[in-house]
Amino acid sequence: MKYSKLFTKTLKNAPADEVSKNAQLLIRAGFVHKEMAGVYVYLPLGLRVLDNIKQIIREEMNAVGGQEVQMTVLQPKDIFEKTDRWDDAKVDNWFKTKLANGTELGMGLTHEEPIVDMLKDYMTSYRDLPLSVYQIQGKFRNELRAKSGLLRGREFVMKDMYSFARSQAEHEEIYERVAEAYHRVYGRLGIGDITYRTYADGGIFTKRFSDEFQMLSEVGEDTVFIDESAGLGVNQEIIDDARLSATNINKDNLKEFRAIEVGNIFPLESKYTDALGVYYTDETGNQQPIIAGCYGIGVSRLMGALAEHFADDKGLVWPESVAPFRVYLACIGSDDTVLTEADRLYQELEGSGVEVLYDDRDVRPGEKFADADLIGVPHRVVISPKTIEQGKLEYKIRQSGEAELISAKELLQKLGV
Amino acid sequence: MKYSKLFTKTLKNAPADEVSKNAQLLIRAGFVHKEMAGVYVYLPLGLRVLDNIKQIIREEMNAVGGQEVQMTVLQPKDIFEKTDRWDDAKVDNWFKTKLANGTELGMGLTHEEPIVDMLKDYMTSYRDLPLSVYQIQGKFRNELRAKSGLLRGREFVMKDMYSFARSQAEHEEIYERVAEAYHRVYGRLGIGDITYRTYADGGIFTKRFSDEFQMLSEVGEDTVFIDESAGLGVNQEIIDDARLSATNINKDNLKEFRAIEVGNIFPLESKYTDALGVYYTDETGNQQPIIAGCYGIGVSRLMGALAEHFADDKGLVWPESVAPFRVYLACIGSDDTVLTEADRLYQELEGSGVEVLYDDRDVRPGEKFADADLIGVPHRVVISPKTIEQGKLEYKIRQSGEAELISAKELLQKLGV
Repeated sequence: MKYSKLFTKTLKNAPADEVSKNAQLLIRAGFVHKEMAGVYVYLPLGLRVLDNIKQIIREEMNAVGGQEVQMTVLQPKDIFEKTDRWDDAKVDNWFKTKLANGTELGMGLTHEEPIVDMLKDYMTSYRDLPLSVYQIQGKFRNELRAKSGLLRGREFVMKDMYSFARSQAEHEEIYERVAEAYHRVYGRLGIGDITYRTYADGGIFTKRFSDEFQMLSEVGEDTVFIDESAGLGVNQEIIDDARLSATNINKDNLKEFRAIEVGNIFPLESKYTDALGVYYTDETGNQQPIIAGCYGIGVSRLMGALAEHFADDKGLVWPESVAPFRVYLACIGSDDTVLTEADRLYQELEGSGVEVLYDDRDVRPGEKFADADLIGVPHRVVISPKTIEQGKLEYKIRQSGEAELISAKELLQKLGV
Repeated sequence: MKYSKLFTKTLKNAPADEVSKNAQLLIRAGFVHKEMAGVYVYLPLGLRVLDNIKQIIREEMNAVGGQEVQMTVLQPKDIFEKTDRWDDAKVDNWFKTKLANGTELGMGLTHEEPIVDMLKDYMTSYRDLPLSVYQIQGKFRNELRAKSGLLRGREFVMKDMYSFARSQAEHEEIYERVAEAYHRVYGRLGIGDITYRTYADGGIFTKRFSDEFQMLSEVGEDTVFIDESAGLGVNQEIIDDARLSATNINKDNLKEFRAIEVGNIFPLESKYTDALGVYYTDETGNQQPIIAGCYGIGVSRLMGALAEHFADDKGLVWPESVAPFRVYLACIGSDDTVLTEADRLYQELEGSGVEVLYDDRDVRPGEKFADADLIGVPHRVVISPKTIEQGKLEYKIRQSGEAELISAKELLQKLGV
């Protein structure tokens, strides 16, 4: 894409009330626009990153047998009353609305009830199970404070999967397979080495532990204790000896960190399926409870977490797997030879399937370089009268920051095309 | 995809309160699930169709220079007060909600105000214009009645684009270019021959006409008069001699039809940009009004309209451009030779990039055939002991319904792979 055709511009300043680094950077670089606290518009660059994250998650959920659907934002009251999650005194972060006739509705903050209720038509026999269904969708939480940019949204994008099994053993097998898929997601996003599976409180759901996936970060809201050698951790919430003894963590190895929760998975036992009266018939014709699990990843939160982690004092430094473009190509000066060569290279790269942000604007070189650094595209290529003279181009990796003169052919090799 | 891995099953009956043909078919075939009146879940088959329609629209909007963003559902009150569209007495189909602190919010039913307000940072100079921005997103309308299935939703998917120009002439050029893109969308969806551009009332927006795109259909809510030779029409709302005389329609040619509105485009003049105080600075340093247009296509409504139009007494008959799969492959019987050949063909087709719904279920042939017809995948292939004996397979086009025996090689030729 030509930069001159992109409507966003980098901004000198983020809104004064925006205190989080992720939102400041993403707003200044033109990835998001703040509609109100905790509610962000995705601009063209930001939408590309969001879609890349979604696609990685989608591929990994499909790989463990997840089937994608799209549930609704508007939610009926009755199914949430059956599980006692309608009352604001019980669940305090609902957004609610009303039909024209006065009927109260909820705005989806989680989808256990509607998923289970919907599946009653589709999981009646042991032959229909096990089954995993997921969606990637906008969710709504009426947060009192929303000051962490994309890390805690009132309107946010989430992947939520729900699994249904015939027995506890079958459930646990699925649960572990999804946990492995989560590690693959974080690995592909470039945060595998700083993201740990941590035991957390099962909350109202279950007597068992739930699991969080925590990305170490000083801006995180959570405090976790990590046993690095075990590659595991535990949330501060449950750190007492009695509970620790039920885990395979060595207490002596634990180190304290701040962390961002970038995923959580819950065993739901048969709480929701029982409450909504959904059972399966086994091989002998008997009704049996359905054992469920739920698996969340905050997609927009991950975008914020990546912006926190992959950044330096000049701006964003996207990992290649989610970057809005692979190459930032800048032409310097208005020499015909420069423009011709830059145009040619742009065409060649795009023709080879490499996505390029081609900075064809008539602005100072310094402005182009500063914008390139702020936007954080992984590979920067500059064509100037000086590089043309040597039959080369200037190549820099955003992350390492060292420029070198290479040929167009060498560039293609570096990009693997 | 293997049918045995798909969690949906075809249903004998749609819910008793579902009176529209599109929803009945889409529910019975497992494309959507009714959450409440006018609010539908997209199941795996339905999500594929919806995504295919979105992608066609996206490509055509990109081709006329549209830049994709994603606006928010939650909307602040103040920007809608500036255009006098907040008050329920003025706009009667808002869903509204509240922040925990009591602040009233709207749930996006249209996005002129937030788009214009957002763009104030990005269109300040004549150099920034013209500019077209679009999104494909969930929208909410608090309809009193919602009995037409996907044709009139309370929660629905819409593509809305907004254009901004430096002059009326520049606006009109964009407006006509988008109108042509709309015709291309309907052409690719297979309804080009029954979809007409029709003049409609500009409503509160403008003294000029707006334009609708109406697909002829007996279940449509609108009455339109079409001049087939001119390829144009006019909505009943504005059919009086004085107004007709301002158009290029020959009144004598007009024929009356029922129709479904599958798109509408509006000249907005500078109503919203003026109200929100957004202007551009021209070459001479003077502030000038920005002339806007808006361009809607109901994506989920189109899915419903296609289901109404492309159906027969056996079920859905999807056009190839949006079908959830291209090929429905059924194996009959449990002979090893049948299963081996069906597996082989499934692998070969998928390997060639042909999306196949492979009916590997252990059910009666009649059930497979009935489900194939109900689901409406364009090409049906059957492998049975009889076809194996002849070294052939049975091939049927869903639309024409005539089966023939052909070789696997001939099948690949027919599919163009």
